[in-house]
Amino acid sequence: MQGSLRQHMAAGGPIINGWLSMPSAYGAELMARAGWDSLTVDLQHGVQDYSSMVQCFLGASASGTPMLARVPSLEPGIVGKVLDAGAWGVICPMVNDARSAAALVEACLYPPLGQRSNGPNRAAAFGRPGKPYQSIVNDEVLVLPMIETATAMAALDDILDVPGVGGVYVGPTDLAFSMGLPPVFDSEDPRILDAFARVVEATQARGIVAGVHCGSPDFAARMIAMGFGLVTVGSDASLLAGAARDAVARVRAA
Amino acid sequence: MQGSLRQHMAAGGPIINGWLSMPSAYGAELMARAGWDSLTVDLQHGVQDYSSMVQCFLGASASGTPMLARVPSLEPGIVGKVLDAGAWGVICPMVNDARSAAALVEACLYPPLGQRSNGPNRAAAFGRPGKPYQSIVNDEVLVLPMIETATAMAALDDILDVPGVGGVYVGPTDLAFSMGLPPVFDSEDPRILDAFARVVEATQARGIVAGVHCGSPDFAARMIAMGFGLVTVGSDASLLAGAARDAVARVRAA
Amino acid sequence: MQGSLRQHMAAGGPIINGWLSMPSAYGAELMARAGWDSLTVDLQHGVQDYSSMVQCFLGASASGTPMLARVPSLEPGIVGKVLDAGAWGVICPMVNDARSAAALVEACLYPPLGQRSNGPNRAAAFGRPGKPYQSIVNDEVLVLPMIETATAMAALDDILDVPGVGGVYVGPTDLAFSMGLPPVFDSEDPRILDAFARVVEATQARGIVAGVHCGSPDFAARMIAMGFGLVTVGSDASLLAGAARDAVARVRAA
Amino acid sequence: MQGSLRQHMAAGGPIINGWLSMPSAYGAELMARAGWDSLTVDLQHGVQDYSSMVQCFLGASASGTPMLARVPSLEPGIVGKVLDAGAWGVICPMVNDARSAAALVEACLYPPLGQRSNGPNRAAAFGRPGKPYQSIVNDEVLVLPMIETATAMAALDDILDVPGVGGVYVGPTDLAFSMGLPPVFDSEDPRILDAFARVVEATQARGIVAGVHCGSPDFAARMIAMGFGLVTVGSDASLLAGAARDAVARVRAA
Amino acid sequence: MQGSLRQHMAAGGPIINGWLSMPSAYGAELMARAGWDSLTVDLQHGVQDYSSMVQCFLGASASGTPMLARVPSLEPGIVGKVLDAGAWGVICPMVNDARSAAALVEACLYPPLGQRSNGPNRAAAFGRPGKPYQSIVNDEVLVLPMIETATAMAALDDILDVPGVGGVYVGPTDLAFSMGLPPVFDSEDPRILDAFARVVEATQARGIVAGVHCGSPDFAARMIAMGFGLVTVGSDASLLAGAARDAVARVRAA
Amino acid sequence: MQGSLRQHMAAGGPIINGWLSMPSAYGAELMARAGWDSLTVDLQHGVQDYSSMVQCFLGASASGTPMLARVPSLEPGIVGKVLDAGAWGVICPMVNDARSAAALVEACLYPPLGQRSNGPNRAAAFGRPGKPYQSIVNDEVLVLPMIETATAMAALDDILDVPGVGGVYVGPTDLAFSMGLPPVFDSEDPRILDAFARVVEATQARGIVAGVHCGSPDFAARMIAMGFGLVTVGSDASLLAGAARDAVARVRAA
Repeated sequence: MQGSLRQHMAAGGPIINGWLSMPSAYGAELMARAGWDSLTVDLQHGVQDYSSMVQCFLGASASGTPMLARVPSLEPGIVGKVLDAGAWGVICPMVNDARSAAALVEACLYPPLGQRSNGPNRAAAFGRPGKPYQSIVNDEVLVLPMIETATAMAALDDILDVPGVGGVYVGPTDLAFSMGLPPVFDSEDPRILDAFARVVEATQARGIVAGVHCGSPDFAARMIAMGFGLVTVGSDASLLAGAARDAVARVRAA
Repeated sequence: MQGSLRQHMAAGGPIINGWLSMPSAYGAELMARAGWDSLTVDLQHGVQDYSSMVQCFLGASASGTPMLARVPSLEPGIVGKVLDAGAWGVICPMVNDARSAAALVEACLYPPLGQRSNGPNRAAAFGRPGKPYQSIVNDEVLVLPMIETATAMAALDDILDVPGVGGVYVGPTDLAFSMGLPPVFDSEDPRILDAFARVVEATQARGIVAGVHCGSPDFAARMIAMGFGLVTVGSDASLLAGAARDAVARVRAA
Repeated sequence: MQGSLRQHMAAGGPIINGWLSMPSAYGAELMARAGWDSLTVDLQHGVQDYSSMVQCFLGASASGTPMLARVPSLEPGIVGKVLDAGAWGVICPMVNDARSAAALVEACLYPPLGQRSNGPNRAAAFGRPGKPYQSIVNDEVLVLPMIETATAMAALDDILDVPGVGGVYVGPTDLAFSMGLPPVFDSEDPRILDAFARVVEATQARGIVAGVHCGSPDFAARMIAMGFGLVTVGSDASLLAGAARDAVARVRAA
Repeated sequence: MQGSLRQHMAAGGPIINGWLSMPSAYGAELMARAGWDSLTVDLQHGVQDYSSMVQCFLGASASGTPMLARVPSLEPGIVGKVLDAGAWGVICPMVNDARSAAALVEACLYPPLGQRSNGPNRAAAFGRPGKPYQSIVNDEVLVLPMIETATAMAALDDILDVPGVGGVYVGPTDLAFSMGLPPVFDSEDPRILDAFARVVEATQARGIVAGVHCGSPDFAARMIAMGFGLVTVGSDASLLAGAARDAVARVRAA
Repeated sequence: MQGSLRQHMAAGGPIINGWLSMPSAYGAELMARAGWDSLTVDLQHGVQDYSSMVQCFLGASASGTPMLARVPSLEPGIVGKVLDAGAWGVICPMVNDARSAAALVEACLYPPLGQRSNGPNRAAAFGRPGKPYQSIVNDEVLVLPMIETATAMAALDDILDVPGVGGVYVGPTDLAFSMGLPPVFDSEDPRILDAFARVVEATQARGIVAGVHCGSPDFAARMIAMGFGLVTVGSDASLLAGAARDAVARVRAA
Repeated sequence: MQGSLRQHMAAGGPIINGWLSMPSAYGAELMARAGWDSLTVDLQHGVQDYSSMVQCFLGASASGTPMLARVPSLEPGIVGKVLDAGAWGVICPMVNDARSAAALVEACLYPPLGQRSNGPNRAAAFGRPGKPYQSIVNDEVLVLPMIETATAMAALDDILDVPGVGGVYVGPTDLAFSMGLPPVFDSEDPRILDAFARVVEATQARGIVAGVHCGSPDFAARMIAMGFGLVTVGSDASLLAGAARDAVARVRAA
């Protein structure tokens, strides 16, 4: 039985999250075997869509790793579909105000807390003994609006106060873009680091999780130390590309 | 226009070959951008078949990297298909005697040198100005029987003397298996290293190429120094898995 | 030539509708051969997207069975796409007021009745002799908003009065959810059955069709007796899962 | 390195654009080899979705042909996805007023000109030496709202005055539909031709491009003579179907 | 119900056969609508494998066009698979002697005439009323060895005398290759035309069909006049590529 | 960690085996959840190939159900591929003599017992703690030649005496065909039942398993009582088709 991400989180310790940008069931299986605490299929910027996400979910399923999905935009149709397919968390880009956060929660939760439509397919098997999936998932699913603009930072408290928001996921490069900074990961710009600190503080004050996308393991470790509860390191695509470039370079160098 | 591997080789220097085990066009594109001199789609032990090979060929096509294929077995149908799709070289497993090597050559070359059937599809575009593909490919395609058993080692000279054989590709783990050794890459066992040396010597004596599959960049560099003209480092799958495990470990360690 | 669902309906008698949740062309072909009067590809809760829907349409095409699609949400892009691919009916979830129903009609019909954009691909072949598809489809396509919340029940008459609405499709589990009842099929709760009766009455008064999703053949038969003109029984996924569990149990029992 | 469409256009001369309605990487490769100046994957009316678009992009990538995409509707999620995958231009249907045009620009451009979210995947490789993709693409991407209703014609100047609009693409059959005319290509109706003339005049006055979808090479040539800078001829599907019907007819006739 | 090719042939007149090299269900549907008497999926030189063949069979199924398959080589596994999927005829390359022809027949026919293994999947539905598929298919399936080498020409009578051979299919370019001539279609070389004449004569003498692959409709018409009962014109790929090049050229010329 | 079929069998009790003819990862997941002791992907008569088998393996992987594959024919390439992908057993059709059985064993086992080539991909993860996959799989893999002709029955003892043969799988319809009987499942013909009895006796005498394909749960239960250790009931395709026909009939009957 696949455990939810919240169950993993309840065990304590930060979540080291893997990122699936490649539409490959076998790639997902390889990633799942590598020891990530959770895996996120990126339907926004990854080379992914609903169908490839399902394949990735299946590819990773033997590992029991909790799966999340980043949706391309705040559109109820796709939010319902990723949940029906078995996502235990939804990362949604460009949530810049409380109204959007509330719409995201509404799309993620069943009545009476939200308006999610009933009809899980793969997820129907994710109930607990004696408890159908529909009776547990409102408590288990992690709703993660992305904080990735200066506008969202200004509305941070309002967004976090929306009932049902389970944390936030920071998109550092879009945040930088919106501040007029270069859109790069692992920035040392104090304005970025200051925004990170504010997110950590605001989420910890509410007992919810803060996640952030990092470019390197070292920066991810720093972010954990800073208080982030969920860190992502690059993606399958960046890991593969980096390892391949490195291998070629090492042979040529010798 | 995609150049053949032989054209690359004519420029001198060893070929650093990438290995595609993942059935992913996007993965192939990422690999192609990493700077390998050639890429081989592994239809034998990779999670690949004809259809995924074509997708990998397309995914890598913008790079102009010469593509090879390892076929699952010495069967004329699939040899013709990988060539029609644009492979500039064919690696064939378990060629243990001259008769098999001759059958491989026959499947790879058009009349009068062989019996390959006419009908290139993607490859039809790989002709040179004024020279249709069919008029050049017999000179350009690289026929690489695998030397991967003690039996094949015993028949090495016979195999290499078969007209049309363009070199050999050593499968170190099957070779080890057949010698009663553990089937591991980058073995330091002197019996393996001695076999490597004999392959290098025999191919250099005939002015043809020796290739070998390696597990690490360092060993690949050693093999080049030993005289191998084509070295493979792991595979996309092993590179991804290794990079992912490493990233997780580095975050946890911090 | 594939007949539309309306043509089938004109022949009288209830429509026994099959439901395609599995993204499988061959599965669709097997379902099409089983004798359903129509088949619906479920892009909302099924493991389906546009691409798999097309495959299902092709898989079922030899049977001539009229195909419908349930879209994931009321979004004009996907409504147009399912119609262009050959759907003769569109089931749209969560239509809770007349404004939404009007938007759905607008997306389903060509000018001057709606704003559907021209460009059928598979459907272009579905014209009648001397009558291009575009000239007949406004009369043939079945626009079916889903009635699946208490809100929608309250607005039932308004929704049905929207010109172009060809009937409704009741989603019993979401309807139950919205009423604070367990989200199960084939409920005997009088509040649900009463809602069904109101839907039948309101549609019959207008000469349009009422459809309902059922969990079992027996309940479907009861719904026909109650006045529903279109009944669905489970889905390919539930039929396969049930038959497999049953087969295993019967062997073990013996 | 793949050049953008704007780079091609800077070289002068009209753009002869091919249209990809078939979800086929190999079909895209065949089209790319046929000499079109650009190729557009049609996610609206083609049998295409995001995933098949990526396959078509990969299939055509060896040719270096600039790729465009027509999105199914004005929805920011899919606009970002086609750009991340490497589209150098976005054709968006049913842009009927300046507000929609502005929303389209906002979805297509990075800050500070728009709100496109950062995270190119395939496109990340499309930077120029020393200039990351993100630093050049706002200048290179072609934003093409479709003018295909009488409403849009009435708002033409307002639409064209929206900063960031790089031209328009005329959809002649929807335009005809909205005027109460038959939805056919290459119409000789003076109302259609008059609308075309107005589009050409208004775009030329602003130094931006006007594109139009044609049914035949002859009409496309006339449109170039009329002042259109980008013309499409049918689609892969219509070309294949026409050539096949013609071949059969010619054999039967003999 | 899909009719077999033999049923079509019984109606008299030559068979104008379309050729599917593109792995596209939609492409197959477009081809099926173009009026070919039969369609052949080419698993040898086409960009096809078993899976894409099934998709093409499904794509074409609504038309009722009898489907054939050319297998990659004379291997019983794939012969059985194409038949199980619904092929009414098998074209097999490089049948150069009677022994190979007999092996092909054995793979194509059920006992007692052959050794085909029982287990049709799609084809199980192709029985006639009261007659299961297995009871009719030995009489209906068309076994077509390819005559495409000088060796095969020398053994022509022996091949044709093998019981169960339903005709032959001439591969003109391989035949030319084996004769030391350029591997081109529609050759006017008298040695090729003479071989054609001998094939026609030998098949007509036995009341079986002769087929030939042609490059153009005009040559196909000539071949019918010469006595061929089945002619193929190019392929979907060549038709698409030709139509696209022609369209571009015609716009540029204007 | 996925257990092998032999491990399941060691626990005692018959194996109730499910059969996957549909190329659907989701279908495989649904089947895996239904409680079968093992699942076999049928690459011979199913609508399956290597690629769809991998998808089915992934779809079923979360259940831990041991997976088998039936290969299309006795060809070493595909035997190695299904094992590399994670099959714990290989069913091979038409093994009619000891020589074929020996060739099958050779293809299934690593040296020194066989000639399987090293390079597991998915299966590499199936080792036990401290024991790589290659060191255990020769003992774990189940080699199952099919007994499905009168010829094979005559050679039964010879086949079973081949070292490495782990049992047999009876194909009742081909067996019937070869005896001149109708090719139907669950035959009551005494010649068939007698052959079954001989297979059970001969395998039990050697302590190896006898498997048989059945058409219904009742017949499967009888076969268990007769002494078969592994029984298959129909297939996903026959279960789905039967359940669908039954559902339609029950609604119509009411």
